[in-house]
Amino acid sequence: MKASTELVPEGGVTSPKGFLAGATSAGIKSNGEGCLDLGILFSEVPCTAAAVFTTNKVKAAPVVLSQQRLRQGQAVALVMNGGNANACTGEQGLADAAEMAELAARRAGVSAEDVLVASTGIIGRPLPMERIRAVLPKVVLTADGGHDLARAIITTDTATKEVAVRAEEGDFIVGGMAKGSGMIHPDMATLLCFLTTDASVDVDFLGKALREAVDISFSMVSIDRDTSTNDTVLIMANGLSGSERIAQGSRQAEVFQQALNQVCVYLAREIARDGEGATRLIEVSVSGAASVADARLAARTIAGSSLVKAAVHGSDPNWGRIVMAAGYSGAKLAADKIELNIGGICLVKNGCPLAFNREEVVRLLDKPEVSIALNLNIGSAGATAWGCDLSEEYVTINSVYTT
Amino acid sequence: MKASTELVPEGGVTSPKGFLAGATSAGIKSNGEGCLDLGILFSEVPCTAAAVFTTNKVKAAPVVLSQQRLRQGQAVALVMNGGNANACTGEQGLADAAEMAELAARRAGVSAEDVLVASTGIIGRPLPMERIRAVLPKVVLTADGGHDLARAIITTDTATKEVAVRAEEGDFIVGGMAKGSGMIHPDMATLLCFLTTDASVDVDFLGKALREAVDISFSMVSIDRDTSTNDTVLIMANGLSGSERIAQGSRQAEVFQQALNQVCVYLAREIARDGEGATRLIEVSVSGAASVADARLAARTIAGSSLVKAAVHGSDPNWGRIVMAAGYSGAKLAADKIELNIGGICLVKNGCPLAFNREEVVRLLDKPEVSIALNLNIGSAGATAWGCDLSEEYVTINSVYTT
Repeated sequence: MKASTELVPEGGVTSPKGFLAGATSAGIKSNGEGCLDLGILFSEVPCTAAAVFTTNKVKAAPVVLSQQRLRQGQAVALVMNGGNANACTGEQGLADAAEMAELAARRAGVSAEDVLVASTGIIGRPLPMERIRAVLPKVVLTADGGHDLARAIITTDTATKEVAVRAEEGDFIVGGMAKGSGMIHPDMATLLCFLTTDASVDVDFLGKALREAVDISFSMVSIDRDTSTNDTVLIMANGLSGSERIAQGSRQAEVFQQALNQVCVYLAREIARDGEGATRLIEVSVSGAASVADARLAARTIAGSSLVKAAVHGSDPNWGRIVMAAGYSGAKLAADKIELNIGGICLVKNGCPLAFNREEVVRLLDKPEVSIALNLNIGSAGATAWGCDLSEEYVTINSVYTT
Repeated sequence: MKASTELVPEGGVTSPKGFLAGATSAGIKSNGEGCLDLGILFSEVPCTAAAVFTTNKVKAAPVVLSQQRLRQGQAVALVMNGGNANACTGEQGLADAAEMAELAARRAGVSAEDVLVASTGIIGRPLPMERIRAVLPKVVLTADGGHDLARAIITTDTATKEVAVRAEEGDFIVGGMAKGSGMIHPDMATLLCFLTTDASVDVDFLGKALREAVDISFSMVSIDRDTSTNDTVLIMANGLSGSERIAQGSRQAEVFQQALNQVCVYLAREIARDGEGATRLIEVSVSGAASVADARLAARTIAGSSLVKAAVHGSDPNWGRIVMAAGYSGAKLAADKIELNIGGICLVKNGCPLAFNREEVVRLLDKPEVSIALNLNIGSAGATAWGCDLSEEYVTINSVYTT
């Protein structure tokens, strides 16, 4: 992390001032009694808000509802659940999403129009509204409820993903939580990510800053090249830090952008690390590309290649697969200029294989974080993408269980 | 197969008149002594020839060489090997490919300019030219050598893929062989396919007919969404059947196209069925699309989705993943019009789930061929794609072995 921000210990979405959260068990998740699966994120004062949603043409009911409500550029609360995506559920699904918002609004004492909704889990099943009606009004909102909320939305994730950073200049905090794991692919790749800040942020700038942060973080993660019906990255800014209003070009715009980028990149890496069945985080840096678009394309294609991912899983220095993936990515390249490094060891120069110590590369591929660096040597643009290895466990998770 | 063609029993590339083939062992494959891995396909008279090559920007040396030589629209022989792709091998690789052609040309008594080259296998290792020099001149070419040749090019394939059909009208034969298994993705998806015919075919029409056949066959197969550096589909037509010259618009153009399509679709299905680790062939038919391009996009995306493939592997009627894949495919669709059938059982109508007999659908998903039919209900265009299930074995093959 750069000098102008510091990590908040055990930070999350309730680290910024004035954000409360809480979660409960509504029996939506299949993995047993008492498992948190329903919760509310709430700001004591109205927020400017912006979001990036799935590009999937089949959109879940909560995405449709939240997209509509966000047109006003503000929100006060967000109700969310894990275990059921409320997708492909027709008119009933839209009614259920609206009722979830209504129940949360009553709990929080705000207007339903200011409440957004997010869901994640299995597609095509109606929400158990009776149980939701019974427990949602009893959710307790507290200033350290973010951790429970983070637990409520994870599905096949093995750990919650939470972070918060404090900007020294401006003294505001940006917090975030995410869930990922499967059905994760660029444009965009989150399932769910919720960001909060007590900075005061102009709504237009907030949307632009969020898009920029998503572009270099969640859009650069690929677990399985499947894009969910429910992807949502949402930010709420309540201004309670007392910082001056941040807008395009204002003094703290840069600081805010940097803090937001840090939070998003951190969460994106955690999502990649915790991909379904993953045992390694793979970081792919492409440099020397003719354009940023090309660098992004090549980095994401390599990070997403099943054959590259399987090779990393087997700690096999099968660099041909990396070059192959770059070759079909669509990025401009010259095969005889490519330089490839794995964990700092150069395997290919000017497109030709070098002699290398195989044992040493195997050891590097065996580590929890694997770094692949590809220099296309035809320009000056670069980009970084993240993925994970492909393990037998990924297949087991997705064939044995209905997720 | 339609009425105007009949299957040739145990047919292959040497079924059409005047094609000879043979294979030998040069120790290129790692799986032991005596394993066929090098061979020649030869026509007794010069052929018109056309090919479709990989779109990967990193092209293997034999692809570069064959592309150049095919500009003249003719060929007499083809030399090929399995076990080594001769890709990312620089100037040496180009020299080796040229020498392979030269050695084969001398063996067959033709000009090296009329000999094409194809390789498949591991990327980035030099060919063992000394051994190739020792054995290639001794390859015995026979009229039933096609089966040996088919064995020489398979890598992780579990079986050879060969077929031939005879067109009743015109009395010519179209034969073919292919290898597939991994690094298989549309545009195009073959690794290697060689087609022969004793029809007399104008070279322009031959190229056009091949492109059309590839579009509905190999371009509709996805095993792992990785595109190889070596993909080659090549056809040679020697005219020895005595059929009249077939050109665009001529009487037998349609018959020839149909025979070629049959051969290519047969081989494409066999490639999908024998995908690395596959236990099921998945056929995805999309209908009611706004355009053929949309239908192709949706069908290929569903057939290629890791989550759909894993669900089929587990015989899990998780239809939400199929709708999800259609949704992010880029095809135009209306979520509330979608109809989905698995093996003839309707699971989704007007975008909403129907009650269905789960046990019955599980049984259908358990069969060696699984049929998924998606009607978008917004137009009249359709397309069919093929894939296979994703098994733990795919991961094992690609992580434990260097392929």
